[in-house]
Amino acid sequence: MNPSIDKNRLFQSIEDLGGIGGYLDERTGLRGVNRLALTDADAEGRRYVVATMKSLGLDVTVDRIGNLFGRRAGRDAKLRPVMMGSHVDSVPTAGKFDGCLGVLGALEVVRTLDAAKVTTRRPIVVAAFTDEEGSRFGTDMVGSAVASGRLLLEQAYALRDRKGCVFRDELERIGFLGNAKVPIEPPHAYVECHIEQGPILRASGFDIGVVTSVQAISWREVTISGKSGHAGATPIGLRADAGLAASRLNVKLREMATSGRYGKEMRATMGAIAHEPGLVNIVPGRATLTVDLRNPDDAMMKKAEADLLATFDEISKSDHVEIAWRQTARTPVVPFHSKIQALVAEAAAVRGLRHEKIASGAGQDAQEFAPICPSGMVFIPGEYDGVSHNPREYSTPEQCANGINVLLDVALRLADEEGGP
Amino acid sequence: MNPSIDKNRLFQSIEDLGGIGGYLDERTGLRGVNRLALTDADAEGRRYVVATMKSLGLDVTVDRIGNLFGRRAGRDAKLRPVMMGSHVDSVPTAGKFDGCLGVLGALEVVRTLDAAKVTTRRPIVVAAFTDEEGSRFGTDMVGSAVASGRLLLEQAYALRDRKGCVFRDELERIGFLGNAKVPIEPPHAYVECHIEQGPILRASGFDIGVVTSVQAISWREVTISGKSGHAGATPIGLRADAGLAASRLNVKLREMATSGRYGKEMRATMGAIAHEPGLVNIVPGRATLTVDLRNPDDAMMKKAEADLLATFDEISKSDHVEIAWRQTARTPVVPFHSKIQALVAEAAAVRGLRHEKIASGAGQDAQEFAPICPSGMVFIPGEYDGVSHNPREYSTPEQCANGINVLLDVALRLADEEGGP
Repeated sequence: MNPSIDKNRLFQSIEDLGGIGGYLDERTGLRGVNRLALTDADAEGRRYVVATMKSLGLDVTVDRIGNLFGRRAGRDAKLRPVMMGSHVDSVPTAGKFDGCLGVLGALEVVRTLDAAKVTTRRPIVVAAFTDEEGSRFGTDMVGSAVASGRLLLEQAYALRDRKGCVFRDELERIGFLGNAKVPIEPPHAYVECHIEQGPILRASGFDIGVVTSVQAISWREVTISGKSGHAGATPIGLRADAGLAASRLNVKLREMATSGRYGKEMRATMGAIAHEPGLVNIVPGRATLTVDLRNPDDAMMKKAEADLLATFDEISKSDHVEIAWRQTARTPVVPFHSKIQALVAEAAAVRGLRHEKIASGAGQDAQEFAPICPSGMVFIPGEYDGVSHNPREYSTPEQCANGINVLLDVALRLADEEGGP
Repeated sequence: MNPSIDKNRLFQSIEDLGGIGGYLDERTGLRGVNRLALTDADAEGRRYVVATMKSLGLDVTVDRIGNLFGRRAGRDAKLRPVMMGSHVDSVPTAGKFDGCLGVLGALEVVRTLDAAKVTTRRPIVVAAFTDEEGSRFGTDMVGSAVASGRLLLEQAYALRDRKGCVFRDELERIGFLGNAKVPIEPPHAYVECHIEQGPILRASGFDIGVVTSVQAISWREVTISGKSGHAGATPIGLRADAGLAASRLNVKLREMATSGRYGKEMRATMGAIAHEPGLVNIVPGRATLTVDLRNPDDAMMKKAEADLLATFDEISKSDHVEIAWRQTARTPVVPFHSKIQALVAEAAAVRGLRHEKIASGAGQDAQEFAPICPSGMVFIPGEYDGVSHNPREYSTPEQCANGINVLLDVALRLADEEGGP
């Protein structure tokens, strides 16, 4: 039997990293985390990861998009490594678990192997990827997508935040513009442990989710142009209220999600909106907003997107506005490798953990590796309906330890695999 | 026959003041105006007004809320003055006419009386009131309401903008914290010329609006609290999307306005909204927004407000959110004095101008004087459906001159009235 990780040591590391960029949510009294990508808080979180890697004797490299890699030698240095990873950047209103569990859990796996004096055939690499969340620069999975070769380095460098700050400049400013080349050499395999960020495992009483795929994701930034005017003096019949058009769109998004026309798991969200000029007594002349669509079925997603564009046309006509949009993210359904799924299920079974197949509702760094090597994920349940991107996000020490023990088992199997470079 | 004002001189002064705080609207190529209250641009506009007053030999005073007064002596210094006025602050996306026409027109009246060597029995005062728009500190008519005694000076001083800047500090910072006492002594009468800010006069081919009243106005700041969560992983059935609740409210506001249940002239606007955290991939946990209701009938307004609160309750239940609100402005229908209405109609008739009774859709400084002295207003039409709070706002030199000639006639009649102090 493989060694088991130290539950309390793992959870303490989650607490420690969670104190970096921590803030008090005044409305709830909860402590949240804000380590938005390439901010000073993100840098402090990264330094925590690098320091831990070094304390474990890992060979640390930083690549040109700021991804952190800590390499543990295997018996054969010529073989491709098994990579475990995730991210430590966060949304501005985060909890302690999203991404961090995967990175800190991988480090805990290394610590456990060290204590048990286990040497693997292949090297093991712990990775922390840059800007998974996309909250600041509008594009998610930046680090893993550049590492895997889907996103060009120069495109990532040119991204700007709302204040006009340039991605590359910010990466340099925080001291994490590395020189290791991208795209990276494909690893032998990639495996990631993550919180589910949803209610399914918890509600069904399962300990481990065997992740089958990441659902299709489609993001749009939408600009609605109408005509501003005096809120008191402009008759209703003469208005072209861009804000009202946005509201109609939001109501329509919910109707789409609950209609059943795009399957049972269609999700649609208007996360952000701004009116211009945005004053109590002025009919909004312009509204800018985001639309986030998710679907575990590619064909259903395409149908939903086509209907969204038709809805834009309908609202343009009914509300006398112009609607322009640009796609800010689009990924199809990404299936995970059947071998990794089988290894996750087997490891859970051996450890007596109840496990179930599940699709990921969120986008994941692992999806970027699926095209270049066998990749997969381990999900664990979360309390409070699995709420995430919220200070209330919480998984128990036991739930976390279950996931990381499975991660360890899967990584060990992969790292001792025969064959191939 | 009274002298007539100089159309081109008046229009040039509108152009001159309109260049202060001017900006290029990049989407339309139009030049707009941004002289938000108590900003540096507002200060520069005020200095233009003070300099013009002084160049005309007016006795200039600034009161404790920053209102500017320029006094032209009458034959009897003991008599109460006739006051003409309006405002020179603006919304952030304004044209050149809103408010400015009333102030610059009153100055043009003085210039015309000077040129014609007319001395009136009563003094004439030209007034420019502080922060009529309410765009920055959330409360409109600040200067005229403090001058008339409806709003307490200390309440006005304590107002804060979104950045936390305090009204009194900003007034002092821009150099317009005067020492003349408030409330002011009620004038003999108050008369104001303003653009209609709506389409009615232009569409009907009238030159002059005889303003009968200002419609009732009700502003609320509304906070909707739901539950933030991951946009990909949170099932629709578990969401409490504060932004969606706001969208439903906005759609409902439009239904209220067009239902006919509150008369034909009900107006309802959601001018501003913000989501928290306001990110593409997070279900909004909180939405803050404004609601602006207008109605020319007090009973209809009360009915609409009661139904708005019932709508809050309905949406709270249907969308699993909490809705809190505070009233940021509330004025009943303000009728203008029948004598002033008659004088405006008579002056228009004598000058051969087509005139019509009209209710003001917008709030006005004149409404604050109605409770303390006979008050009234002259409206002129605007092009482009009378659009206002928009760089496209435009009235022709002829339209402006018509209004200011009527203003001159009415002011002269009032300034020569017998009786009273």
